[in-house]
Amino acid sequence: MSTSTDQLGFAGGRLDRADHIRVNPDLVAQALASPEARCLVLDGLDPVTQDGHLLMEPILPDARIEDHLLLGLDDSQRPIFARLTEESGANFVPSPRSRTIANEVPADEVALYGAARSLVHWHGRHPFCSVCGSATKPEKAGWARRCGSCDAEHFPRVDPVVIMLAEHDGRVLLGRQHSWPEGFYSALAGFIEPGETIEEAVAREVKEEAGLVVRSIRYVISQPWPFPSSLMIACMAQADDDKLTLDETEIAEAIWCDADDVRAALASQPGARFNCPPPMAVAYHLLKHWADAQVAPAGASA
Amino acid sequence: MSTSTDQLGFAGGRLDRADHIRVNPDLVAQALASPEARCLVLDGLDPVTQDGHLLMEPILPDARIEDHLLLGLDDSQRPIFARLTEESGANFVPSPRSRTIANEVPADEVALYGAARSLVHWHGRHPFCSVCGSATKPEKAGWARRCGSCDAEHFPRVDPVVIMLAEHDGRVLLGRQHSWPEGFYSALAGFIEPGETIEEAVAREVKEEAGLVVRSIRYVISQPWPFPSSLMIACMAQADDDKLTLDETEIAEAIWCDADDVRAALASQPGARFNCPPPMAVAYHLLKHWADAQVAPAGASA
Ligand SMILES: [Zn+2]
Ligand SMILES: [Zn+2]
Repeated sequence: MSTSTDQLGFAGGRLDRADHIRVNPDLVAQALASPEARCLVLDGLDPVTQDGHLLMEPILPDARIEDHLLLGLDDSQRPIFARLTEESGANFVPSPRSRTIANEVPADEVALYGAARSLVHWHGRHPFCSVCGSATKPEKAGWARRCGSCDAEHFPRVDPVVIMLAEHDGRVLLGRQHSWPEGFYSALAGFIEPGETIEEAVAREVKEEAGLVVRSIRYVISQPWPFPSSLMIACMAQADDDKLTLDETEIAEAIWCDADDVRAALASQPGARFNCPPPMAVAYHLLKHWADAQVAPAGASA
Repeated sequence: MSTSTDQLGFAGGRLDRADHIRVNPDLVAQALASPEARCLVLDGLDPVTQDGHLLMEPILPDARIEDHLLLGLDDSQRPIFARLTEESGANFVPSPRSRTIANEVPADEVALYGAARSLVHWHGRHPFCSVCGSATKPEKAGWARRCGSCDAEHFPRVDPVVIMLAEHDGRVLLGRQHSWPEGFYSALAGFIEPGETIEEAVAREVKEEAGLVVRSIRYVISQPWPFPSSLMIACMAQADDDKLTLDETEIAEAIWCDADDVRAALASQPGARFNCPPPMAVAYHLLKHWADAQVAPAGASA
């Protein structure tokens, strides 16, 4: 069973992104015409699986380059494409299928799906030019769009997000958002804004959401999160004290948890103080990283 | 003289970004009407200085909220705005003025200029909705735009970039881009793509540009870079060997440099093996971080 894996979701892609092909229209056309080429099948933005793998189909004989995105070359050098459709864009609601995929196919295919989802969604949201309002068309095998009127070039977005555990006196801070069920807590998080370093964004978010001053900010791990196209940057931070002033529009409740609380939650133990995110989420790995580094209390090994 | 500072450029902003004001139109209107409020003056996208500081002017009596972006509150709680203009957008060429600012005003003002520049430029590039092509209007005090037709919300971009030193056997790899003068070298760099972790993007870029396989990737430092709105994420990486296969469309020349080469370049010594980026650039600090960690050769202290 792959469902018991501790694998971080959407990371670990194995495709060669083949930048040298993307920028050469002849090579892109060759790749699309190759009998070995495959198209990753999506249902809107949802994954489609067969026998424990993402469903891949041969390219249709009448396939047009401008409807296809080159995701890269697989381990056997097969070009892997995704189809761009007009309908895939504007309304974006992640369905349950787009998350349970993490338990259904191998990790590198979860990553392939995530990349495809982010890119197909971005194309769906960008048929028009933000500079002049005219129509845009894909180019560079789907890694850019260009305006037919003002010639502006537009590139897929990646939105960096900081997600962090503030630590004080052997405990870490977890918050519950209003939309989450009772008992569910995770690390605080927020988008990095123009003009900030990673560390400045961590300090601002913890101050805004919890009223804490933090220092000694340390990067731990990162993750692509395709809803719609974030880069999660997970950090630890040391809080000067533990007195909270919550931003109640963002955070419904917050709790300080010690290493035993966190270990119980990671193991989904009955009676755990909180329900934590699943292993596919970077918050799980940030919590595990912290708990693993804490010295077990004296006598715990007895 | 502030020109001799080793300060990383565009980092170290001190404004309170005042998220709680942005989301409340009444508070934004109050802030704009406050006699203490100031507007950061820009010349297009270029900075304007007076007596060693960024020029700030009182808000004009007929100022409209929809033409102003709230950058935040300064140390004396004065609201600091920037003006949004239609002309600031489409054509983006960083002028020399936008870089020499790092030597002209205090570090926190360099950061303030950088944030303002990224945001004003983003607004200039987004008068229209990428989803439907209709007109958009600023909202949230300039931290978003909304489409008047399809109601889509659009947010300022921050584009994460990896910049890295591949290390092998006591030397680091530096590259020269075709557009740079002879003798100028820096760390390799590239945009993080959808579906990648930071570490995966580092490995891909070093492979693409130099043909090297790297591992043990380690985050060092980050920097906002407002040309137009990047987040530079600087890393070290260990290369398996030193045999280069350059992507000659990206890299004109590449050299392996030892710690003495790097120290000479950082100090701008005559006869240094290469010219390195100035202290305002994150590459300078990445090189310094690495060189400082290298043990001085035996006899060097004699
Ligand atoms: Zn256009
Ligand atoms: Zn619209």
